[in-house]
Amino acid sequence: MNAITIRKPDDFHTHLRRGFLLPFTTAITAVYFRRALVMPNTRPDPVLTGKDALQYKREISIQLSEDQAFEPLMTIQITDDTTPEMIREAHAFGVIAGKIYPIGVTTNSNNGVRDFWKIWPALTTMQEVGMVLCIHGESMGAAPSLKKESVFIDWMLKTIITSFHRLKIILEHITTRKAVEFVKNGPDNLAATITVHHLFLTLEDVIGVKGLQPHNFCKPIAKTEADRKALCKAVSSGNRKFFLGTDSAPHPRNMKECAFGAAGVFTAPVALSLLVQFFEEKGCLDKLEDFISTFGAQFYNLPLNEEKITFVKGPWVVPSKYIVDVVPFMAEKILQWHIDR
Amino acid sequence: MNAITIRKPDDFHTHLRRGFLLPFTTAITAVYFRRALVMPNTRPDPVLTGKDALQYKREISIQLSEDQAFEPLMTIQITDDTTPEMIREAHAFGVIAGKIYPIGVTTNSNNGVRDFWKIWPALTTMQEVGMVLCIHGESMGAAPSLKKESVFIDWMLKTIITSFHRLKIILEHITTRKAVEFVKNGPDNLAATITVHHLFLTLEDVIGVKGLQPHNFCKPIAKTEADRKALCKAVSSGNRKFFLGTDSAPHPRNMKECAFGAAGVFTAPVALSLLVQFFEEKGCLDKLEDFISTFGAQFYNLPLNEEKITFVKGPWVVPSKYIVDVVPFMAEKILQWHIDR
Repeated sequence: MNAITIRKPDDFHTHLRRGFLLPFTTAITAVYFRRALVMPNTRPDPVLTGKDALQYKREISIQLSEDQAFEPLMTIQITDDTTPEMIREAHAFGVIAGKIYPIGVTTNSNNGVRDFWKIWPALTTMQEVGMVLCIHGESMGAAPSLKKESVFIDWMLKTIITSFHRLKIILEHITTRKAVEFVKNGPDNLAATITVHHLFLTLEDVIGVKGLQPHNFCKPIAKTEADRKALCKAVSSGNRKFFLGTDSAPHPRNMKECAFGAAGVFTAPVALSLLVQFFEEKGCLDKLEDFISTFGAQFYNLPLNEEKITFVKGPWVVPSKYIVDVVPFMAEKILQWHIDR
Repeated sequence: MNAITIRKPDDFHTHLRRGFLLPFTTAITAVYFRRALVMPNTRPDPVLTGKDALQYKREISIQLSEDQAFEPLMTIQITDDTTPEMIREAHAFGVIAGKIYPIGVTTNSNNGVRDFWKIWPALTTMQEVGMVLCIHGESMGAAPSLKKESVFIDWMLKTIITSFHRLKIILEHITTRKAVEFVKNGPDNLAATITVHHLFLTLEDVIGVKGLQPHNFCKPIAKTEADRKALCKAVSSGNRKFFLGTDSAPHPRNMKECAFGAAGVFTAPVALSLLVQFFEEKGCLDKLEDFISTFGAQFYNLPLNEEKITFVKGPWVVPSKYIVDVVPFMAEKILQWHIDR
């Protein structure tokens, strides 16, 4: 097959940032995705209320030209201070999801949840109004990085699931075999997003024999080869509980190549090329559309996109960097598919 | 106690480099150490023969002023091509140890041992002439970085120990509880060096919530808290099988803070201050001298140093960098002891 045309995808987890990066991130995301769920942990100000989300949506939308049919799907960050009234207001303003970051576990999470019992009223209201709960599933506290996802599942996710039977819950960017099994065997209101980079990376690609690689450093950090294989199997299995959320997270090079490198892999421009290649290699290109364009929308109760996108087979060299020196995932590597523009 | 005077220490594992860094590394090492075992994996040319070692020793020695009583202890690198004749010649030239790097496991190890059976004649001759074998104990190949030390012990170290009962063998810069136990329970001809940074770091200090920290990145990489505690216990136990080898490894900042960061922690200026503090906190300052000035020399059959060194209690702020922008371990941190100069 030399070309493949499918329903235009959605990215159910992306970071568009604010300020100087926003024109670029919006433009490049709109090329590949019809919709994207925009994470709320922005700087200088996070998106905490419906009004914040509306303001942020305006900032994004003015970047778009008239012929770009891109829709940002808005989220707010759930903190210890989020009240039921704030949930209702956000829902009224069109916010479709609330995002939990346990405090301090990743980039821009210093205002994350400190005391999970304080957010119970907010979660109860989210269930009531039908807002989706997106969780960065890593424990704060003393657990080592390689165990944080596992500890979070046992320590808090099980409690949340037991408490909320109608709340739609997404364990974001899962990285372990344990998380795959937990979501697969969990209730119907539990799903997971999987990133593209976690299908290709293990811890060795961060700390291994090639040296320390900041451009492969993300949270949750890539784990073992067995974990990677479990993620690949989940993606190629055609199970509707697993769908794409790239967690694409651009940082200028000097925020990555420094003494305290920021977590995040910038995959927006390469995610779909890599996925076409991945599904082709697994011999299940017929399942590509479900993973990137169907299952996520269905979980969120959104209409499927009408627009199409075409990928053409042929070598494409990934740029070494994008504007203001943002290094993409797989920089300078040759990929096998590229978008037909 | 406000001051402590002990026999001047030896560093049984250091990287002085060649070229532009050498005047600096030699000068700073000579401040703290009477002798240092100088690693042979230099660039552009490694130290492979007795003649190479003699040349390198000259390069080091001309950096010293007349009043500096510093002696570099020379090593050669053992490769697949090292012959028994090369061992005899090196021994005749005063080389006291041969260093094994399995190929590709660390900085400047691309010429490392590929086929361990090829080095058996060299090891046999080293045993015969009384040269010490220093081993970078990590397996090459597919084992993940966190397992490489463990795999090396099972895969090759046990075989070497079984084969050579009179060869003095040092498992360098050990990082795991398993290695501590293995060396402790091993034969008398087996010892281990322990670095200073591995007493203070775990993997969290490289990939944890503070971000990716290249200045804490080294090979073997720091492991778990349980491993760190086992190393601390080995050091404070007063067991003569464990002694200091700092593995101090300076890199200019741009080799660390980059897309493929080099492995190595530069501890030369802070190692002894940290160790005095460590032994004080453990309540066993009486064991400090053994670890840094006695056990190593005894294992190598070298006379104990006559010179003394004094440390004074009081805050010392570690410089943010040394010449040509080399960032030291614990940069800008306040240490509790400093050398009395």
